[in-house]
Amino acid sequence: MADEQQHKQLHLNAFLMGVGHHEAAWRHPRTRAQSVLDVRHFQALGQIAERGRLDSVFFADGLAVGPRIARNTLAVFEPITLLSAIAAVTERIGLIATASTTYNDPYTLARKFASLDHISGGRAGWNIVTSAGVDEAANYGLDVRPEHEKRYARASEFVDVAVKLWQSWESGSVLLDEDLGVFADPKKVHAIHHEGAHFRVRGPLNSPRSPQGRPLLVQAGSSEAGKEFAARFAEAVFTAQQSLEDGIDFYTDLKRRLPRYGRRAEGLKVLPGVVPFIGGTEAEARALESEFTELISPDYALRQLSTMLGIDLTEHALDAPLPPLPPIHAIEGNKSRYQLVKDLAEKDSLTVRELIGRLGGGRGHRTFAGTPEQLADELQLWFEAGAADGFNIMPPYLPGGLEDFVTEVVPLLQKRGIFREEYEGLTLRDHYRLEPVDGGSDGQEWQAAQ
Amino acid sequence: MADEQQHKQLHLNAFLMGVGHHEAAWRHPRTRAQSVLDVRHFQALGQIAERGRLDSVFFADGLAVGPRIARNTLAVFEPITLLSAIAAVTERIGLIATASTTYNDPYTLARKFASLDHISGGRAGWNIVTSAGVDEAANYGLDVRPEHEKRYARASEFVDVAVKLWQSWESGSVLLDEDLGVFADPKKVHAIHHEGAHFRVRGPLNSPRSPQGRPLLVQAGSSEAGKEFAARFAEAVFTAQQSLEDGIDFYTDLKRRLPRYGRRAEGLKVLPGVVPFIGGTEAEARALESEFTELISPDYALRQLSTMLGIDLTEHALDAPLPPLPPIHAIEGNKSRYQLVKDLAEKDSLTVRELIGRLGGGRGHRTFAGTPEQLADELQLWFEAGAADGFNIMPPYLPGGLEDFVTEVVPLLQKRGIFREEYEGLTLRDHYRLEPVDGGSDGQEWQAAQ
Repeated sequence: MADEQQHKQLHLNAFLMGVGHHEAAWRHPRTRAQSVLDVRHFQALGQIAERGRLDSVFFADGLAVGPRIARNTLAVFEPITLLSAIAAVTERIGLIATASTTYNDPYTLARKFASLDHISGGRAGWNIVTSAGVDEAANYGLDVRPEHEKRYARASEFVDVAVKLWQSWESGSVLLDEDLGVFADPKKVHAIHHEGAHFRVRGPLNSPRSPQGRPLLVQAGSSEAGKEFAARFAEAVFTAQQSLEDGIDFYTDLKRRLPRYGRRAEGLKVLPGVVPFIGGTEAEARALESEFTELISPDYALRQLSTMLGIDLTEHALDAPLPPLPPIHAIEGNKSRYQLVKDLAEKDSLTVRELIGRLGGGRGHRTFAGTPEQLADELQLWFEAGAADGFNIMPPYLPGGLEDFVTEVVPLLQKRGIFREEYEGLTLRDHYRLEPVDGGSDGQEWQAAQ
Repeated sequence: MADEQQHKQLHLNAFLMGVGHHEAAWRHPRTRAQSVLDVRHFQALGQIAERGRLDSVFFADGLAVGPRIARNTLAVFEPITLLSAIAAVTERIGLIATASTTYNDPYTLARKFASLDHISGGRAGWNIVTSAGVDEAANYGLDVRPEHEKRYARASEFVDVAVKLWQSWESGSVLLDEDLGVFADPKKVHAIHHEGAHFRVRGPLNSPRSPQGRPLLVQAGSSEAGKEFAARFAEAVFTAQQSLEDGIDFYTDLKRRLPRYGRRAEGLKVLPGVVPFIGGTEAEARALESEFTELISPDYALRQLSTMLGIDLTEHALDAPLPPLPPIHAIEGNKSRYQLVKDLAEKDSLTVRELIGRLGGGRGHRTFAGTPEQLADELQLWFEAGAADGFNIMPPYLPGGLEDFVTEVVPLLQKRGIFREEYEGLTLRDHYRLEPVDGGSDGQEWQAAQ
């Protein structure tokens, strides 16, 4: 698919959340709060992203309400069902859903993604996560969250099983031979007979091989365990990087891990997040950002920060510096986000109020305010400096923030020759310029139990 | 919703499977076998059913390939993802998905159905099943299938938990108050603190109350345990009944169980299955049925019959009678289907070949061949004799069999005043003329763990 005569191309994913990533987005006049309950809002976002020729849209997920009921707009739709409804009104845009390896079964989840890949004609992607929340644990019969290391051990085996299941139907196994009356060739459909520490799964999957062979595998954890996991499995990585230097370090570190797993650098795309406030002038963009910051509810932000850091800040003075933070090894939740927030607060000696303002746009992702030219410059800089293969675009408000990016920034990237003018292929793997998944499995022929 | 001045109205569900219920449907020239892999085929079926003003469409499901790889067309799409894609291209038709209580978690599944109900604007229904298959067990770490009684005990607790989760957000809990910055009222969102033999779930659900409050609850098991389960939970029941007498007995039996659970007869709709071969004359309809029967692969049919009966018939002579069958108490699989097939074979002393022909259309559901008038007469007879509140229409081939039913039979039922000319409400519960689900929960106010 890749044309080596052209410029190297960057990849763009639209990370969509409610009416925008800024935590006060739903209170701003540029949004319509009711849209968080309206599937047509999300379908329209998929269509806007497709009009911009973006690689994919992406939805995060969690398995509990969390400490956010009064303020939060996140949890209405479950991502796979939502993306299926978006698939029905789009043709090319990739569709990436978050799903947890901690509280799902691999057979069930592999089937869901195969189904989404069939429904979308090969546009499904899976953002593989572990579930670290105490509130999530309580919804699945546990008193405490599973430990970081155990979550990742289960996640690795989970993905192994899922990949085996997706390969359990070889290419060409579905014959649909009406004359002979043969639907599929049993010689090309295989049990997987997986027996591991966490799962015993016989297979085959109850869905024929899907258009992509398997969904695109995406990952977003940046802890040591997370990076090893990404190096082993991920084809795209979403990451939060506050500076170009940090971005280069992360990119270099991750790519260096790939050969250990027999993988090439091109097989994994690194996509740092950016929350863009776009204006006709830089001053206009900054003024827009300030409007949003002023709408943040301090009590909500304090609870959210408390959850991120694992300490109770809800009674803490807003204009005082942060109290001393525990060391990273004591954290059983999201370790990489913890480290990033800690570094951010300590580097500039921020007060709690200042920290809340910095985090309001993208919960630790980099916020950018400027003109379309300035944003295009910044993206090109990171791309060419070796900090990014593309970007995870996180519009602070929706649909306007995505519309502006597609209308004003994408054409500049196209003019510079670093972003596609048209889709080159049909599937999400095509968009990310990844090799097709191999054709099958050499397991034994499957026989049903009677 | 009900207008007592009108005739009593019957309800029609379209039970959709691949390119038709007849097991050889995909080999007949009236179908296009490739459609089993094409989401547009299923979206078009949803639109045809909606054009006919049917109450709902419905998909069965299983969690293993089963002994059917060479011949079977069932398992491509997972029903909830598929119905989400159908929701996107329809406006009124109800959308019923099968999902198992044996190999799912109630929190995850309750969320999926809430999501489908949000996506469809209140058209979701759940056909509640237990998973009896040995092949299914092997995909979820078990060496043997869970016993009948244990499956039902888990299913009851599962539905209890799901209902509590759907009620965990009261009506009016979502405020979206942009001025005050309040998304939802924490006083109206509740933990459920469920602690039972199978599940411990704190809640609340991570999705606000959906348009219907909860999906329509559907059930299809007709064993003793299945009927009690239906009487307790189900709002619609799909059932296989071969004769009017059996239909009346089943209907009467089921409705008589409702008062024990404080329920009224109108709250549960009984829908026997019918597989209609429709022709311009009765002879034409019978000739069409014969065309399909001749396409059955005997070896496939023998394996399927072996699975239904739990004995190996694959080496049995086609023109001999069935061997002696084990008593029903020895059956751990689908008891009601076993009994039905046993009765059918013994009553008319059928050979194996004859039995296969009888079962080919609808796997134990009643097959009907005749003119549109004859079919309308038959449906009206069952409806008015107290054997049915409506029907589970199982087209033997698709899309033609559904198209013919909608074009030729529905207008006759409308002319007779026993089927709606237009939808009266927006939701699936409206179509089935069920009371709205109550507004909330009196549990304690929910507090997040920190």
